[in-house]
Amino acid sequence: MATLHHHPLCPHSRFIRLVLGELGLETDLIEENIWERSEQFLMLDPQGRTPVFVEDQIGAVPGASVIAEYLDETRGLALGDRRLLPDDPRGRVEVRRLMEWFNGKMYAEVTDYLVTEKVFKRLMSAQAGGGAPDTAAIRAGRSNIRFHLAYVGYLMRARNWLAGDRLSYADLAAAAQFSCADYLGDVPWQDNEAAKQWYARIKSRPSFRPLLNDRISGMIAADHYADLDF
Amino acid sequence: MATLHHHPLCPHSRFIRLVLGELGLETDLIEENIWERSEQFLMLDPQGRTPVFVEDQIGAVPGASVIAEYLDETRGLALGDRRLLPDDPRGRVEVRRLMEWFNGKMYAEVTDYLVTEKVFKRLMSAQAGGGAPDTAAIRAGRSNIRFHLAYVGYLMRARNWLAGDRLSYADLAAAAQFSCADYLGDVPWQDNEAAKQWYARIKSRPSFRPLLNDRISGMIAADHYADLDF
Repeated sequence: MATLHHHPLCPHSRFIRLVLGELGLETDLIEENIWERSEQFLMLDPQGRTPVFVEDQIGAVPGASVIAEYLDETRGLALGDRRLLPDDPRGRVEVRRLMEWFNGKMYAEVTDYLVTEKVFKRLMSAQAGGGAPDTAAIRAGRSNIRFHLAYVGYLMRARNWLAGDRLSYADLAAAAQFSCADYLGDVPWQDNEAAKQWYARIKSRPSFRPLLNDRISGMIAADHYADLDF
Repeated sequence: MATLHHHPLCPHSRFIRLVLGELGLETDLIEENIWERSEQFLMLDPQGRTPVFVEDQIGAVPGASVIAEYLDETRGLALGDRRLLPDDPRGRVEVRRLMEWFNGKMYAEVTDYLVTEKVFKRLMSAQAGGGAPDTAAIRAGRSNIRFHLAYVGYLMRARNWLAGDRLSYADLAAAAQFSCADYLGDVPWQDNEAAKQWYARIKSRPSFRPLLNDRISGMIAADHYADLDF
């Protein structure tokens, strides 16, 4: 069976867990604390980041976008209409553009701040950078998330899913980022009804269920986190 | 004819210029100062970053990795043995892993510091973030580059090119990052003979020639910048 090295509140790991769920690919999960920089994990990914996907035929596939491309190339065609990266070049450009937007830009401006300051710094040793949260960073994340929520709302006014007619990597990447902020109670859903409706649709998919069961020790999820009606 | 929106010292633009050169795809170049955030350019890429590739059949293709995937999907097969993203899944994983390493990690740790502080801040208005360079950031870039130079040397001890037997996107992404630092005289080539030999091979390719002719007004290139024997 394939293995995914992940962390429950790493948004890029969550993205790949959603992809694996949509593919129906059962995978063993191994939790990694990347700040411990274990040699064994650095052998799988010299960058030392989660997620890393491992299966017999290929060995280690490190990094969310490399894994997403690999899974599309090896399993995408079999999905037919449900393929997560469309067949046409224009559609692929748009899905990849939005994957980068959420995995890159939203992560840097929002999720990294919130998750690192509120969760990872409590788990890290002082030597690894742990300690009290930087409240300015948390404020920046909470302020920036409004922009990304508005962008989801803007896209959803003209489209059925974020990148077009069909569910794609773009939706799963975005939902993974928002889900981490949502665990922490930092998504102002009331600000944007279209974005909220989009998230409710993703949240009710079977692939999302394992994420709703995630619990981090010492960090209680926001009240509405697992509610499908929030 | 296709168009590439770029900046001469944007390493991601240079990566795509090298790719287009290897593909033999003639392209009009349009220089962009992304810090001006022109509305026209933001229509091409809402993230407002260079490079953006535009051609009739597809419209705007924004971002280096999205462009690289698009060009491989639309022109890769025609290259046969000279394809820049290999045919086999394992090879593709390794090329993409290294593309991310250089376009992402090396950029964040080295090239962004050097180019932003030494070049872009001189060109930007004070309002856009321009001003005196942050010497601590430049020092960080100069210190971190030794690690990336050593990594190139490490890979080249066991391989013919960075990702394996053949020239690939990995080499072009890495060379683009190093070439920006080299323009500024910030690559300690004497530290690593294997990395220097690798760069000399890339530098002598016809696809590299236009980069060697780049000149930024008010910022003279390092003495050896255009020398094939440096």
